[in-house]
Order: sequence, then C-alpha cells, then structure tokens
Amino acid sequence: MRIAIDAMGGDHAPDVVVAGAIEAAREWSDTTITLVGDSNRIEAMLGDAKPANLEVRHAGEKIEADDEPVKAVRRKKDASMVVAGRMVREREADAMISAGNTGALMTMGILVVGRMKGISRPALAPMIPTLDGKGILALDLGANMDSSAEELTQYAIMGSIYRKKVEGIAKPRVGLLNVGTEAMKGNEVTKAAYGLLEQAPIHFLGNVESRDVLNGPCDVLVCDGFAGNIMLKSLEGAASTIFSALKTELRRNFMTKLAAAVLKPGLMKFRSSFDYAEHGAAPLLGIDGLVLKSHGSSNAMAIKNAVRQARIAIQNDLVQSISREISNGSEM
Amino acid sequence: MRIAIDAMGGDHAPDVVVAGAIEAAREWSDTTITLVGDSNRIEAMLGDAKPANLEVRHAGEKIEADDEPVKAVRRKKDASMVVAGRMVREREADAMISAGNTGALMTMGILVVGRMKGISRPALAPMIPTLDGKGILALDLGANMDSSAEELTQYAIMGSIYRKKVEGIAKPRVGLLNVGTEAMKGNEVTKAAYGLLEQAPIHFLGNVESRDVLNGPCDVLVCDGFAGNIMLKSLEGAASTIFSALKTELRRNFMTKLAAAVLKPGLMKFRSSFDYAEHGAAPLLGIDGLVLKSHGSSNAMAIKNAVRQARIAIQNDLVQSISREISNGSEM
Repeated sequence: MRIAIDAMGGDHAPDVVVAGAIEAAREWSDTTITLVGDSNRIEAMLGDAKPANLEVRHAGEKIEADDEPVKAVRRKKDASMVVAGRMVREREADAMISAGNTGALMTMGILVVGRMKGISRPALAPMIPTLDGKGILALDLGANMDSSAEELTQYAIMGSIYRKKVEGIAKPRVGLLNVGTEAMKGNEVTKAAYGLLEQAPIHFLGNVESRDVLNGPCDVLVCDGFAGNIMLKSLEGAASTIFSALKTELRRNFMTKLAAAVLKPGLMKFRSSFDYAEHGAAPLLGIDGLVLKSHGSSNAMAIKNAVRQARIAIQNDLVQSISREISNGSEM
Repeated sequence: MRIAIDAMGGDHAPDVVVAGAIEAAREWSDTTITLVGDSNRIEAMLGDAKPANLEVRHAGEKIEADDEPVKAVRRKKDASMVVAGRMVREREADAMISAGNTGALMTMGILVVGRMKGISRPALAPMIPTLDGKGILALDLGANMDSSAEELTQYAIMGSIYRKKVEGIAKPRVGLLNVGTEAMKGNEVTKAAYGLLEQAPIHFLGNVESRDVLNGPCDVLVCDGFAGNIMLKSLEGAASTIFSALKTELRRNFMTKLAAAVLKPGLMKFRSSFDYAEHGAAPLLGIDGLVLKSHGSSNAMAIKNAVRQARIAIQNDLVQSISREISNGSEM
C-alpha cells in the first residue's frame, strides 16, 4: 500500500507529521509512506531515523490555515496538499492524509482528485465522540451548508458503507439530525429526506434529536453542513464551558482542592472522552480516491492513527464499494 | 393591569398554576389576575385563599400536551388556552400566560390573537442561560423551521425591543447564529440575512458561533427554528450528559463520595445555572398582543415570575413599540 501524507498541514507541522509518519512506517512494513512537503526540512528531521519504506516528495508551497480554499487550491499548484492529492488521482498513492486547512482539502478533493461519478457533493465525515466510546460518524460536517434531500441520502449511503467497511459494523444504524423524532418534524429538506432515507439501501432508524447524540443513538448521523456544524460546535462549546467552570469550582477553597485531587484521575479520563481531537481522522467521502482529514491539532499518534484508518479503508475497498452502491442507486 | 393565565396548561396544572397566580395576586394588588379553566376545580383549590384581585373564568376544554396544534386550536374553541387568548384579542386582558403545548400556543397566537401588521411570522423567544447570568434571548425557537432573511431581520428587531423594554438593556447586542464569525459564512439564508441585519435599526454584532453561546456573546441571538432548536437541544443534551456522567464519577468509591460531599453545594448551584426551566417565560413576539409561554415544568414561582415579566412588558408598551418599529421599517 502507498499512502501520501501532507507534511506541511496542521498546527504542529511538519514536526509531528514527520514523527507520526516515522512511527507508522515502522509499524507497517507493507506500506510505503510518502511525506510531501519541503524536502530539505523533512530530510533534516528524518536524519538517520528514516525507515526504508518512508519516502519524501518535494513540494515547494504550502496552503495556510487562513488561505481562501478555492483560490489556494487553484493558485498553489505546488502546495504539499495539492501534490499529495495529485498522487491519489494518478494512482501513485492509494490514499492521502492531511491535517491542514479543511476547506482547502475539500476543494482539493473535488478539483484535483475529482468527484465520484453519480455523487453530487462529497462530504466530510468526522467521528463525534459518544459516552459509550463507539462514536457517531456525522456527515456532512464540511462545507455543504445547504444540502438537498437527495444529497442527504447520498451522505447516508456513504457513511453507512464507511462504518461497515472500515469499522466492521454489520448493519450501521443511520439517523437523520432533526428537531423531533416524529417523521413529519423538521424543515422542508429534512421532511423530504425522511421519505428518501426510508427507501435507501441502509438501516434507517428515523430522526435523531441533537440532545441524544452523546448517548450514541445511531452509528451514522446525516445532516447538512450548517445544522451539523451548529450541533457539533454547541456540543463542544457546552463541554468546554462546563469543564472550565467546573475547574473554577474545584479551586474554590482548600477543601474543594483536596476533593479535586481525589477526583482528578477520573475526571481527566472523563474529560478526554469529550475531546473531539482524539477521535481519528475524518474521511472525505464521495470523491474518486481516499482522502483523510486529520484534526489540525493532531499529534504524532493522531497521524499514525490516520494511517491505520487509511490502511483498513484500502484493504476493504472503501472507495470502490461506495462507487458501486452509488451507481446501483442511480439506476433506481 | 389585567393578566389572564391558562390554569390548565403545563405538566403540573392546575395546582402549581393556581398557587403561582395566588402569589402573584398577593404581590401586585394593582393587577387583576384571571385564572382560565375548569372553574369547579380552580375554585375548590382557591377556597378561602382567594385574593380580591384574583378572578376565575370557566373554560370547559383543555389542550393536551400531545394535541396536534392547528387541529386543537381550531376545534377546542372552549379550551382554557384559547379562551385566555380571546381575552387578549378582545382587550379584556393586557397579557396572557400559558405553560401548555408550545405549538398550540403559537398557533393560538396567530389564529386567535392575530399576527401584528407587517410581521410575516411571529417568533418564540426563550432565554438561553449563560455563565454570566444575563442570558441570551434567542428567536425563533418555535415552529418557524424555514425562515427567510427578511424574517430573521424581523426577529432581530423584535428581540432587540424586548430586551430594551423589558430588561432595560439600552443597546442590546444582536448576533446571527452561524457556523463562523466571518460575514460570508453560513448557508444561503444567513448570508442574505447578514446584509439586512447590517441595515436594520439594531446594534448588530455579526455572526455568533454556537460554541460561544454559553459565554454570552450577545443579548439577542437570531436563528431559524430549525438551527435554533438544534443548538438549544445540543447545549441541553451536552449539559445533561456531562452532569449525569459526573454524578457516576462522583459515586465511584468511598473517597470520591467524600469528595463529592465537599463539592455538592457548589456543584448544585453550578448545575442550576444550566437549567433551562429556571430562566423565565418566553414571549411570543410579532402577534397583536402579549402572550408568554412558561416552561411546561413550571412551578408556582415560575408562574409568578411570568406575571412579573408580563407586568414589565405591559408597563413599557412592548407590543406597541414593536408595532411602531415594524411599521417604520416597512416604509423603508
């Protein structure tokens, strides 16, 4: 297997990306890893630690976190992210991973790797942590702010195949993000999507309310990018606000500090289960190749885990399976 | 002042509603309170405790929590909620309060009290608790699942006047719920609304992300009913999930139970600041009269507080002020 990694993307690039790539190359000797970016810097960091199955490909530019996506992808043809994407398009790599600018990565996926035939809009599908540890794959959580009922149905099919192929869930439960559980709840789009989802080749549970999401009511949650982002940022915001207020509460006086010391290990573990950065890379589904988005704040372990995910997806023919299902559907 | 109260609406009606009405009547002797509902039951509960400024008006029916709103309002013409609404329309009451079926109350507001001239859709505006205790008035959090940019702008104007008139905030800061702070973020509707809000006679701050809401970034938050409900239920869901998981954590063993005992008073206070039921009644803005929605789980104190809110709104000419501003705007 050949996996390309955008060495220049992410808050701590290229250091942690290179470190993660080294670990991944050491762990999986059957996989060739190509670090794409400033070859001088990367080679200097690698030094004598470079495993035999780790390559470097030079890319003279990089896309910054605040670059305007479409402009950046169009103009920076030699950006590390774009070069890695081209490797996927040219079948020089079976997958690529980037922790860089999310909007640019989605744009790159469409413009460079290319949309999958029959797919109207590719979707970004991160894992939302749940209390049971299993997580919910939610899509779209990318840039598709207004999605049609047909697009939501495609998200459902793609997300379902992902959890089946990459995580071995035999019959992923699909939910539609909505404001109530009854079929006729919601806005015009969710009402129309409900009917289509009932007909789709998936295990559709019905509507899921955002208040239940952390309890893991489904395996795949379908939403447009607007509602999905509102939900995700509300969950993150509430968790972060509550934990920081709790911290203040625990520091109030001597007695509460003592109590806090007793509780610390448990609380730390509990806190980390709400940490969105620790739940793997998000696949960009619906493009003609495998592209994974690592969290911007990824550490070396996160990069290595993204390689693990990519390997499983490649081994299980994720992209081909989605393509098959979508072309079946389009004949319906 | 004359305030009608739907005695039969809410999870604990009529008991707590009657108790709250008695307290309110005792506190404000200049206000006549009319309890609308099953007069036999209400009179029996009042007994000798009935203050002179408390009246009872019989209504033979009631709208149930699970009644279909439009059908219920149309068919149950003698329902306590409908009779109280009619009192507002006929100017027999300056305001009405109900803790009953939210959808039915919105429908009643439109069908019985009537839409305000120039208003396309009335909006329900509950207060979202924030860490600083000031809260954010968010609208619409009712049934307007798809709102246009023009409607969002009307929500902004109405919410702004409410916080000015009822809470004395001189220059309420208005935010637009969105997925990013930059002007061009969001879906088609929020992008169009941004421009209109900049022109509106309000203090528009720009976009507000749901992750910041609990920190109180604005006084009025504008959203359609779909996004607003997704946000609110995500915040509620995260808070409730975290607090119940925390409870489990605190009960883990003898030491954590000891620690929990030390922390309990602080945690209880902290927990209650996230309790959505404790933050007053939600006005239904944009109808031709004053209608307040108390939380379904309201206790007597909550009903009394709703009377307090209604009194302030009446004293400060809330409905007339909104009507004036909207007709000014429609001349633009």
